[in-house]
Amino acid sequence: MGIVERLHGKDLLCTQDWSIEEIETVLALAGRMKQDRFAPAFTSLLKHRTFSMLFYSPSLRTRQSFECAATELGGHAQYLEPRMMRLKSGGSAGETIEDAAQVMSRYACGLGIRILEDQIGAYGEGAALIREYARWASVPVISMADDRFHPCQGLADIMGLREHLGDLRGKKLLITWASGALARSWCSVQETLLLASRMGMHITLAYPEGYDLDPEVIAWAEDNCLASAGSLDIIHDPYSGYAGAHVVYSRNWMSPQAYAGGQFQKQREIERSLALPEWICDAERMARTENALFIHPMPVDRGYEVTDEVASGQRSIIYDIAENRLHVQKAVMALTMAELPARPEAFQG
Amino acid sequence: MGIVERLHGKDLLCTQDWSIEEIETVLALAGRMKQDRFAPAFTSLLKHRTFSMLFYSPSLRTRQSFECAATELGGHAQYLEPRMMRLKSGGSAGETIEDAAQVMSRYACGLGIRILEDQIGAYGEGAALIREYARWASVPVISMADDRFHPCQGLADIMGLREHLGDLRGKKLLITWASGALARSWCSVQETLLLASRMGMHITLAYPEGYDLDPEVIAWAEDNCLASAGSLDIIHDPYSGYAGAHVVYSRNWMSPQAYAGGQFQKQREIERSLALPEWICDAERMARTENALFIHPMPVDRGYEVTDEVASGQRSIIYDIAENRLHVQKAVMALTMAELPARPEAFQG
Amino acid sequence: MGIVERLHGKDLLCTQDWSIEEIETVLALAGRMKQDRFAPAFTSLLKHRTFSMLFYSPSLRTRQSFECAATELGGHAQYLEPRMMRLKSGGSAGETIEDAAQVMSRYACGLGIRILEDQIGAYGEGAALIREYARWASVPVISMADDRFHPCQGLADIMGLREHLGDLRGKKLLITWASGALARSWCSVQETLLLASRMGMHITLAYPEGYDLDPEVIAWAEDNCLASAGSLDIIHDPYSGYAGAHVVYSRNWMSPQAYAGGQFQKQREIERSLALPEWICDAERMARTENALFIHPMPVDRGYEVTDEVASGQRSIIYDIAENRLHVQKAVMALTMAELPARPEAFQG
Repeated sequence: MGIVERLHGKDLLCTQDWSIEEIETVLALAGRMKQDRFAPAFTSLLKHRTFSMLFYSPSLRTRQSFECAATELGGHAQYLEPRMMRLKSGGSAGETIEDAAQVMSRYACGLGIRILEDQIGAYGEGAALIREYARWASVPVISMADDRFHPCQGLADIMGLREHLGDLRGKKLLITWASGALARSWCSVQETLLLASRMGMHITLAYPEGYDLDPEVIAWAEDNCLASAGSLDIIHDPYSGYAGAHVVYSRNWMSPQAYAGGQFQKQREIERSLALPEWICDAERMARTENALFIHPMPVDRGYEVTDEVASGQRSIIYDIAENRLHVQKAVMALTMAELPARPEAFQG
Repeated sequence: MGIVERLHGKDLLCTQDWSIEEIETVLALAGRMKQDRFAPAFTSLLKHRTFSMLFYSPSLRTRQSFECAATELGGHAQYLEPRMMRLKSGGSAGETIEDAAQVMSRYACGLGIRILEDQIGAYGEGAALIREYARWASVPVISMADDRFHPCQGLADIMGLREHLGDLRGKKLLITWASGALARSWCSVQETLLLASRMGMHITLAYPEGYDLDPEVIAWAEDNCLASAGSLDIIHDPYSGYAGAHVVYSRNWMSPQAYAGGQFQKQREIERSLALPEWICDAERMARTENALFIHPMPVDRGYEVTDEVASGQRSIIYDIAENRLHVQKAVMALTMAELPARPEAFQG
Repeated sequence: MGIVERLHGKDLLCTQDWSIEEIETVLALAGRMKQDRFAPAFTSLLKHRTFSMLFYSPSLRTRQSFECAATELGGHAQYLEPRMMRLKSGGSAGETIEDAAQVMSRYACGLGIRILEDQIGAYGEGAALIREYARWASVPVISMADDRFHPCQGLADIMGLREHLGDLRGKKLLITWASGALARSWCSVQETLLLASRMGMHITLAYPEGYDLDPEVIAWAEDNCLASAGSLDIIHDPYSGYAGAHVVYSRNWMSPQAYAGGQFQKQREIERSLALPEWICDAERMARTENALFIHPMPVDRGYEVTDEVASGQRSIIYDIAENRLHVQKAVMALTMAELPARPEAFQG
C-alpha cells in the first residue's frame, strides 16, 4: 500500500503518531497547494462533502482557516459548539460520545475538534476527549488544538521555517517561555518541539523554574533528537538562549500547577506570569542571534511575549505561518478524507 | 399536474398533511439518494441556493443533517438563531413574522424552523409559530421539529424500518414511554405514530397513566388505521407490549401537565419521570419480542430509556435511522425547493 | 485604468468615498444580477473564495443577505462573532486589529464588519473601528452597517426607488424621524441622505428639535445637492413634509445625547422617543403626498414608525428594497473582490 493509501482514513491527533514519510507527504502537498491555491486538481477533492468542526473552545484563526480549507477543496465545514449539542458531561443527561461520533460519521467526511485549557479540569483531559471521539468515529478525526497537541500549528511552523531557511538540519531554534496575560496551553509549543526535534534542529528550551512542560513530550523529543541528529537543551534564563539562534519562538505557557484543585486557576497563573516581565523577546535580545526569524502561533500578546518592534519587524514571519495553517490543513484533509483515487494528480508532486 | 409538480413549493409541517403518494415519492427518492449519494443528478438540485434554518431550540443532529443535505444538493444552509434576530416577541419591539418571512423568501429557497419545549409556554405554540411563518413565506417551510410534529424524523424511521423489514403491513410496533432525565417533546413519537398507522402497522402504545399524548393526534392515528388495515392499542404496563413485537421504540416524553402554570415545568417533569424506572427497554424484555429491531430518534438517554446492551446491540438500527435523516431531508428539499424541471432525471426512479 | 480595474480591491465604508461613476457601475451590475440571478456569468465570480463577516452586533437581514450573496457568487461567507475571537479590547489581553486583519487577509477575499450602537461608547467609534480594519487588511473591507454609515442599505434604497420611479432627479423625498422603541443608529438614514443628495433629489429632512444628525454628514449632503441640482430642507414638524412627496422614509433614530456619560443610554432614548407618538407615518399623512412610495431599511417597528396599513400597503416597497440588499451586495463583492479579468462578461452591460 502506497503512502497516499495509508494516509486515507487516518486520524491526526499529534504529529508524533505519524511517520516522517507521512509528514513529508503532507508538507509537500501543502507546498503545491500554496503555489497554486485554486488549481482545479484541488478544488474538487472534497466536493459536496461536509467537515464537522466541534469547538469546545472558541477560536478565530482555527475556525477561519479550517472553514476556508474546506471551501477551497470544494466542500463545506460546519461550525458546531457543544452548547448547541445535548452531550452527556459529568453526571448530566445527554448523548454519549459513542453515539455522537458514530452518527456524525454518517454525515461528515471528517471531524475536527478543539478543546483547550478553559474547558477541562486537569491536564490531558482535552486530548483524551478527542481520542474518545476518534475511537468511535469511522471518519478521520483531526485535533484542531487541545491541551496537549496542535498538529496543524506544528506543521505550519515547520513549513514556514523551511520556506525561509531551507533544510532545517543543524539550525538552532530557541523556544522560550514569555510573560503574558493569557495563561496559554502547552499544545502549540509541544507540537513544534516534537516536530523540530524530528527535523534535526538544535533546540534550546528556555523557561523559568517551575514551568516544566509534559515530561512524556520531553522524553519523546529527546528520542526524536537521537534519531535525527538534533539536540535539546533546557535552560532557565531569559537571555543566553538567543546566542546564535536562527529562529526564536517566544510564547507564554501555564505552569504544571495550573489545575491544582481540579479546575483551571487562570487568574493565579496570569498573576504569576506577569511577575516575570524580564521574559520577553525584544530587539536587544534578537541582536544576539544569527539574524533569527521570529515565529509565534498567534494570537500574539504584544508587549508581554514580544515587543511590537520584533513582532512587526522584518524577520517576523508570523503571518506567513498563519497562512500556512490553511495550506497544511488543506493537505491533511485532502490526504485523509478525499476519496481514492478521485484525483490522483492532486497528490503527485 | 403530476406528483412532482404538486410537491414543488409545498410546506412540510407534518406528514399527516401529505398524501400517501407524496410520502412514497419522498421515500423512493430518499432511497435512490442513499444508494448513490453524490450522483451528479442530485448534486446540482439546489446549486447556489440558500436554505435558511431558524433554530429557536439548539440541536446537533438536525443542524448537521440539514446543513449536510443542502451541501450535498449543491447549495448552502445557513444557521440562524433567533437571538441573532430582532424579532417581535410578546410585547417587545422587533420585527413581525409577517415581515421576517416575506424578506427571507426573497433570499432563500426554503425555510427550516425548529422550536421545542423549552421555548414555548403551552403545548402547540411551537407548531403554531411555524404555521405563522408558513402563512407568510412564499417559499416552502419545513418543520425541523416542533412541540407537536417532526416530519423528517418520522420519514427516517419508516425508511429505516422498511430497509430492515420490507413491507410494514401487519408488522407489530411497540411505542413505549420510558423513564428519563430529559423531559422530551411529543413530536418524534407522534409523527412516527401517524406514519406507522398509515403504513398498516399494528401499533401498541404503552405508557404510564397520566402520560397521554395529544388526543387529536391519537384520533388521526385511529382514522389512519381504519384506512390502512392497521391497528392501535393503548396499554399502561411496561412489559406486555413487547410480546411478539417486530419493532420497539422506547422513548421518554413529558406529561400533559408539563406546561401547567404557563411555563415548562422541566424539573418537575424530570422528577416525576425518574420515579418510574421500571419503564426501560432492556434485554430481558426484548427477549419476549420477535427478534425486534430497536429504534429511537436520538439522542438516546442510555440507562434510562434503554440499556446500553440494547442500544448498542445487533438489533439496534439507531445509527441507520439517524443517517436516513440526511436522505429524507435531501429528498424533501429537492422535491419541494428545486427548480422545475431543472433535472427531471433526478426525480425519476 | 478602467472603472472595473479601479473598483478591484476597493473598500466600501461609505458611498460618499466612491465616485458617481463607481456607484452607477455597482447599480448597473446589481440590476443585471437581479434580472438573471443565477446566470453562469455570475455564479463563479467568487468560486471557492471565502468572505469573512465579523458581527460585533447581531443581525438577521445583513447576515442572510451577505451569506446568500457569497453563495450565489460561488463562494462562502463565514459568520464570525467577536465573542468567538480573542481580540484585544480596552485594556484586556488579546489580538490587535493589526494582527487580526493581516491574518484574515491571507484567508479571505474580503471582510465585512458590522458594529452598531450597542457595542460602542461614543458616536463614531464603530466607523473608526472598521477604518482600522481597512487600514491593515490587504483585501477589501465592507461596512455591513456601523454607527455612521450603511452603504449597502443606501444602494439598495436607490436601486428600489429607481425601479419604481425611474430617474430620481427632481423627485421629492421626505426622510422623517419617527417614534419607536428601538433607539436606532443613524447609519441607514445618513447613507440614504448622502446618496439621494447625489442623485438630484429634493429632500426634506423632518425631525423633532433635539434630533439633529451628524453635522459633517449634513454638510456633505448640502455639497452633494449643489453638485446634483438637488436640495435639502430641514423642518421640525411631523406633517408638512408629506405634501407633494414622491417617497416617504419614516424611521426612528437616537438623539445626539445618546452617549452622554460614555455609554449608550438606550432606555432613556426609548422613553424620550415614545413621548413623541405624533411622529408616525400613517395613511392620513400619506394621502397628502403624490401617491408616495413608502420605504424603510427594516426591521420595521410597526405601530410606532409606521402604521400596519402603510407598511403593508400597495405603495410600500420595503420587501423589494430588502431584496435589493442581496443584489447590490453581490455587485459590490463581485466588483471589489473577484479576480480580474476572471469573467469580463460578468461586468459588462
